Amino acid sequence: MSVQQAPVGGARSWVELCLQVQQFYGRQMQLLDSGEVDAWACTFTEDCVFVSNAQPEPTVGRQALAAGARQAVEYVTAQGIRRRHVLGTVAVIGQEETTVSVRFYVLLVETPRGGQATILCSATCEDVLEVGPDGPVVVRRVVSRDDVV
Amino acid sequence: MSVQQAPVGGARSWVELCLQVQQFYGRQMQLLDSGEVDAWACTFTEDCVFVSNAQPEPTVGRQALAAGARQAVEYVTAQGIRRRHVLGTVAVIGQEETTVSVRFYVLLVETPRGGQATILCSATCEDVLEVGPDGPVVVRRVVSRDDVV
Amino acid sequence: MSVQQAPVGGARSWVELCLQVQQFYGRQMQLLDSGEVDAWACTFTEDCVFVSNAQPEPTVGRQALAAGARQAVEYVTAQGIRRRHVLGTVAVIGQEETTVSVRFYVLLVETPRGGQATILCSATCEDVLEVGPDGPVVVRRVVSRDDVV
Repeated sequence: MSVQQAPVGGARSWVELCLQVQQFYGRQMQLLDSGEVDAWACTFTEDCVFVSNAQPEPTVGRQALAAGARQAVEYVTAQGIRRRHVLGTVAVIGQEETTVSVRFYVLLVETPRGGQATILCSATCEDVLEVGPDGPVVVRRVVSRDDVV
Repeated sequence: MSVQQAPVGGARSWVELCLQVQQFYGRQMQLLDSGEVDAWACTFTEDCVFVSNAQPEPTVGRQALAAGARQAVEYVTAQGIRRRHVLGTVAVIGQEETTVSVRFYVLLVETPRGGQATILCSATCEDVLEVGPDGPVVVRRVVSRDDVV
Repeated sequence: MSVQQAPVGGARSWVELCLQVQQFYGRQMQLLDSGEVDAWACTFTEDCVFVSNAQPEPTVGRQALAAGARQAVEYVTAQGIRRRHVLGTVAVIGQEETTVSVRFYVLLVETPRGGQATILCSATCEDVLEVGPDGPVVVRRVVSRDDVV
């Protein structure tokens, strides 16, 4: 997407859109890592599709997504592990009507209680966002873990 | 904070505020990692409060903060270690009068001379910034290291 | 650079310039990591200079740069390794006529097929960018790896 294109949704300009997207991810990842699963699930549309090269089938729908996230949160809580999704630069790569496409790197960093932080995995995330008056929501996410062939 | 809210301090708009905050952190972390302790300390207010879950008591005041940082810089210099505070997305989460609240992840990455880079620790940082005509300064910082319970 | 300075090149404001620069790096690093060497090389000027403390001599010119990158891409492809250049906050530190100076941290994260992600190295990157109507291009890059003395 270039500076010259008209902005989408509630954003009044290209710069505003880029920043809305950045702020969205800051908040989204912190919700997941804090275990606020319901609030996190609401950053996806009701009928969202979540594809990962580490899962045999896509996860479809907010409810299924929340169920998976809740399981992961319970696991790390029981193990005394903290996980952080640390994002690199979020590149806005495309725009179509009211949606934008973005691409970014994620380092999933894991720290056991009293222990050493390690990178659990490095991944690339490609999202399609719907940008409405209340900001972006994820319509479709494709996660490609670097360790999975 | 949403796009709709009025900006604070010297920032003329929400987008400008977000970018001022980002630029501030880029500069602040580079000052510390370069050993420019006095310039780094001036990115905090005179009466700043620095809370960390790795320290029994808060550090109060710019002078005390600078003294602690100087000790850390001397240690890593003597050991031939380089430390970098690598930040994830900086989320602007609140605004009140002339202050803004932000939350971000930090990876403290350490490299010994000729050696392997490792994550010394992963932490979450919650700051209250005072935004004046010359840009932001930190009033209060709360650091939560992921390895400390 | 401060908010008050006039913007350069095709950017219409300071905020736009900062975001153009961020978006540029998101795209540039993803091109390299995806093995799109020719497109990546075009993010540098024809007569660019690339200095690294890990190389005895600077690399001069886009063609030489592309040749080096192609070799690196072939190596990692043959080894089944994925490399990601994960960037911290990009700080815009100076501005002169149509050029801007930026400084940022890079974590070069490497993942072998089916294996553990590690930080191959941590580095600081200082770029001089020429900002034209089509966005930024790198005129001069200085990479300082933290493990090299």
